[in-house]
Amino acid sequence: MGQIGATDRTRARRLPERAAVSTDALYEVLDSGLTCHVGFVYDGYPVVIPTAYGRSGERLYLHGSTGSRMLRTLAAGTDICITVTLVDGLVLARSAFHHSVNYRSAVVFGTATPLEEPEEKLAGLRVIVDHLVPSRWAQVRPPTPRELAATSVLTVPLTEASVKVRSGPPKDEAEDYALPIWAGVVPLRLQAGPPQDDPSLAPGVSPYGQVFSRMREKTWP
Amino acid sequence: MGQIGATDRTRARRLPERAAVSTDALYEVLDSGLTCHVGFVYDGYPVVIPTAYGRSGERLYLHGSTGSRMLRTLAAGTDICITVTLVDGLVLARSAFHHSVNYRSAVVFGTATPLEEPEEKLAGLRVIVDHLVPSRWAQVRPPTPRELAATSVLTVPLTEASVKVRSGPPKDEAEDYALPIWAGVVPLRLQAGPPQDDPSLAPGVSPYGQVFSRMREKTWP
Repeated sequence: MGQIGATDRTRARRLPERAAVSTDALYEVLDSGLTCHVGFVYDGYPVVIPTAYGRSGERLYLHGSTGSRMLRTLAAGTDICITVTLVDGLVLARSAFHHSVNYRSAVVFGTATPLEEPEEKLAGLRVIVDHLVPSRWAQVRPPTPRELAATSVLTVPLTEASVKVRSGPPKDEAEDYALPIWAGVVPLRLQAGPPQDDPSLAPGVSPYGQVFSRMREKTWP
Repeated sequence: MGQIGATDRTRARRLPERAAVSTDALYEVLDSGLTCHVGFVYDGYPVVIPTAYGRSGERLYLHGSTGSRMLRTLAAGTDICITVTLVDGLVLARSAFHHSVNYRSAVVFGTATPLEEPEEKLAGLRVIVDHLVPSRWAQVRPPTPRELAATSVLTVPLTEASVKVRSGPPKDEAEDYALPIWAGVVPLRLQAGPPQDDPSLAPGVSPYGQVFSRMREKTWP
């Protein structure tokens, strides 16, 4: 199991038992998440924007329009923070104080590098599309040179990151366990519903079941 | 319907048709989300951390340990960005280029003010707990003076914010609609599973059904 060395900004200041920096734990969170939140500093103030991403090996990939403010700012090499969070449950304690949320989160620090070569850009986009919908890239029309030129694809090395996890039942004060109050966990997950056909689907195209099946594989613990 | 005036940093630079700044739209996103991502600048670099929140009127509330780095940084009045994102679906197009995600997001800019008076802090904590689990506050043991002293409660006014929404089917290139490729939307939502009793539940406490019922009320469109 690989390790990423802790730095001053990734070392958890509070609750160190919730921190881990093994690459296995990091990749598990990054691969289980669907979207990320990207933080950067623009004109001196912090900005946090949700976006799609993908991971391949020791790198994350981001993309967007070459005209977007975020992509232009990130491509210039500014410091960024990419956070992926999975909310796993509501933790209901007997006391208000000990209410919590079960979650897994990864916080990645670094800078992004724009990919310049068309083949590199295509490979990065494939990582992102196949992260959203496994194996989708091979089923669809690939980008044209014009589409590729309009898309900025960035890569971020996974060299500085932290992972935090909270799981399990609430931790109440000893004297509160006798209270006649329900306590426990309400598990949560991102669940897929039945796929909705595009109204202009070409005649004879089969219904889609792949993503729905993938999501349904995740059963309740 | 109220409006929050657009500022240079909330005006959407790309895709203005996805931007809205009515307070109705803002509150709808903030009230539908469960957790937020808070961005701030620490030692010159951006940090993005997931946390719980709640809204009451024209204010957001955040909380945490008085010892936490994030809470101490925010309480000092640094600029923050609070982003709430709901992922509503995967948008599968016929071309890789037009793949997308249906989502609703709110981006709030401002600064946080720490609440000092115990009654104010209790009111803020109630907003946060009841946001996670409606009506929960009235059912549990309230904070002791010691617990309250260990908790930092911050308020952020909703004076500068933007909302972005992407919904509906993919938008493919005209010539791609004839391709024999499935296209459409796979809807997604955060779904609650069966509540899991704390292993040390007091004898005779009834099973919990409230949150689960609340989540199940949200039916697929």
